[in-house]
Amino acid sequence: MPEKNEIASGMIDRLGSPKAVFKLKYQGKKTEREEAVESNEIAVLSILSALKDAKIIDHFEDITAFGHRVVAGGEHFKKSEIVTEQNLALIQELAEYAPLHNKVEAYYISVFKKLVPKAIQVAVFDTAFFSQIPEVNYLYSIPMEYYQKYKARRYGAHGTSHRYISQRLNQIVPGGINDKKVIVLHLGSGASISAIKDGKAFDISMGFTPLAGITMSSRSGDLDVSVIPYLKKKLNLYDVDDMIDILNHKSGLLGISGISADMRDIETAAAKGDNDRAQLALDIFRNRIIKYVGSYIAEMGGVDVLAFTAGVGENSPEVRADVLNGISYLGTKVDTDNNNTRGKEVKITTDDSNVAAYAVPTNEELMIAQDTYDFAKLLN
Amino acid sequence: MPEKNEIASGMIDRLGSPKAVFKLKYQGKKTEREEAVESNEIAVLSILSALKDAKIIDHFEDITAFGHRVVAGGEHFKKSEIVTEQNLALIQELAEYAPLHNKVEAYYISVFKKLVPKAIQVAVFDTAFFSQIPEVNYLYSIPMEYYQKYKARRYGAHGTSHRYISQRLNQIVPGGINDKKVIVLHLGSGASISAIKDGKAFDISMGFTPLAGITMSSRSGDLDVSVIPYLKKKLNLYDVDDMIDILNHKSGLLGISGISADMRDIETAAAKGDNDRAQLALDIFRNRIIKYVGSYIAEMGGVDVLAFTAGVGENSPEVRADVLNGISYLGTKVDTDNNNTRGKEVKITTDDSNVAAYAVPTNEELMIAQDTYDFAKLLN
Repeated sequence: MPEKNEIASGMIDRLGSPKAVFKLKYQGKKTEREEAVESNEIAVLSILSALKDAKIIDHFEDITAFGHRVVAGGEHFKKSEIVTEQNLALIQELAEYAPLHNKVEAYYISVFKKLVPKAIQVAVFDTAFFSQIPEVNYLYSIPMEYYQKYKARRYGAHGTSHRYISQRLNQIVPGGINDKKVIVLHLGSGASISAIKDGKAFDISMGFTPLAGITMSSRSGDLDVSVIPYLKKKLNLYDVDDMIDILNHKSGLLGISGISADMRDIETAAAKGDNDRAQLALDIFRNRIIKYVGSYIAEMGGVDVLAFTAGVGENSPEVRADVLNGISYLGTKVDTDNNNTRGKEVKITTDDSNVAAYAVPTNEELMIAQDTYDFAKLLN
Repeated sequence: MPEKNEIASGMIDRLGSPKAVFKLKYQGKKTEREEAVESNEIAVLSILSALKDAKIIDHFEDITAFGHRVVAGGEHFKKSEIVTEQNLALIQELAEYAPLHNKVEAYYISVFKKLVPKAIQVAVFDTAFFSQIPEVNYLYSIPMEYYQKYKARRYGAHGTSHRYISQRLNQIVPGGINDKKVIVLHLGSGASISAIKDGKAFDISMGFTPLAGITMSSRSGDLDVSVIPYLKKKLNLYDVDDMIDILNHKSGLLGISGISADMRDIETAAAKGDNDRAQLALDIFRNRIIKYVGSYIAEMGGVDVLAFTAGVGENSPEVRADVLNGISYLGTKVDTDNNNTRGKEVKITTDDSNVAAYAVPTNEELMIAQDTYDFAKLLN
């Protein structure tokens, strides 16, 4: 930074397993090795050591700032912040809103803090981008005191990605997007759809937690809340949290198909034609997407631009074509050649289409690096 | 019957109170009297006695058939049925799906059975019309076995009204609606929106129970299910059912505004301009309607006809105009004069509007009478 050049990137897949996969990309070379990464501490050490081994750094202290993605920022964090002890405690408290994420994230931050005490830690909140959505869209139709006292409201998530995509769209869409109606579809294993109006976040399919919205890999998305007590009784569950756990981990594509939470597995099984439930999972996934797209078109009074991102959004011409053909009543026209590419930034509608659509690879890391760099610069 | 002439009609308002209002309309005369109707038995006796007093019948036994609206029919009842002892037990069991309704309805049926044992009792199910919606729309994205074993799915409600409106539309829309895309907005104190495609129910905003969907008088409509355990803890509730109770009875317009569950009170307070929360309740109500309308337009791939019915739908030109102007990107044009009528069957879009819209007073009683008459005819 500030050149926005990626020096190295990496990830640990299947963390917690004895066969975790550590991937590193550096100087155009990709390395991948299996190793046992059975705890969060080992993961952090593993990352830092890999940077040393590859001679990207000489000492841990060469890193002046770490940026972290944090899912829930509540009403407190409306933008990225340096993680002081106080902020770390707040992040932990906010785990009420993102039970799958905040605690783990806070723990990672504390491990990095301990191992590289001189560096700053910056938290980039996935909810921050949506802190500007209007009250009509963030309030639920529940007694107002539950919002006033307990802050029960829609927060959304994936904001770092939706923010990146809207900044990127502002560069690539002729005339920018500051006077346009935009829908961003972040379709990964977690999936969310946002409405962006006049350059600002206007609505988001995820809700109080990332459980709400469209069908996801293992999350149910929206359903009648009355199902909760009903199934809790039927399943003889002691605690309502056990039901929420099922809705987070065993539902969505996995729950419907019964075979996998991974879209690639579902698509393969459906393509073979011998798995009705895989096809059904796909159909339901596409249906929920089109419904959200339609609802955002209606509440914005139209749409000018759609953007598809994340795993499925960047790599599934079928899903993109389905959505765009689904709103052909608005005069959308898919550019079939362009749409048949994967993982590329490309306009996927024809020039005479009434609505423009793009595939835009997301880059949450760049957003996080940018915010982190901005803080590091302030301090030096 | 079969002439479909209404001989008399009546209702008991504020049932259960010492100041219940008993309304009867007969031979063009409306009578209204306050009386204590503190139990369901008294209500039934009160109705039957009023019919005798007005000389509509000489004896209770003059009535050969009673038709009843029943909210939840589950997967079992796909059409109206005579209430045998077995069916009565089933209706009671199905109270799991409509805690506010089925038990009371079953009880009423049993009281009528006892008082007029020779007559047949016919149950007309509010879910039956939606038993034909496609699997993609009735299944939730939860583990499939919860549908297979426990029948947890979308059932919808208000089907008797949606059925009546679609039959009526089929008569008044040029060419009928059997090849059209239709959205029916039943906006009363309970409110639901349905998609009707090619003459068949295609989707419905209410879900497993009537709690789901748009904001209602005192029901929340859709919200992130994760809010349930969160608020249950914050409110120190012992049972998750207590939370569902709050979402059914203290939420919606009442919960947001803090003043009333009655749309007329909310509109009056908002019009005065000194009650922000009343205005907010209205704004949220309209927003949720427009979102559902948009989602159904998208999943049907367009819309040809919209119909507004029930209290607000028949009587609020403002809400109707809001919805139609909200989708003006489809070329809808409101006929202002026609729209400024209340309680009438009228086309409310201009002839050059791309989408036709109607206000159509609902008549659930006629549907119920028709189904009831059909059974009575079979038996005699």
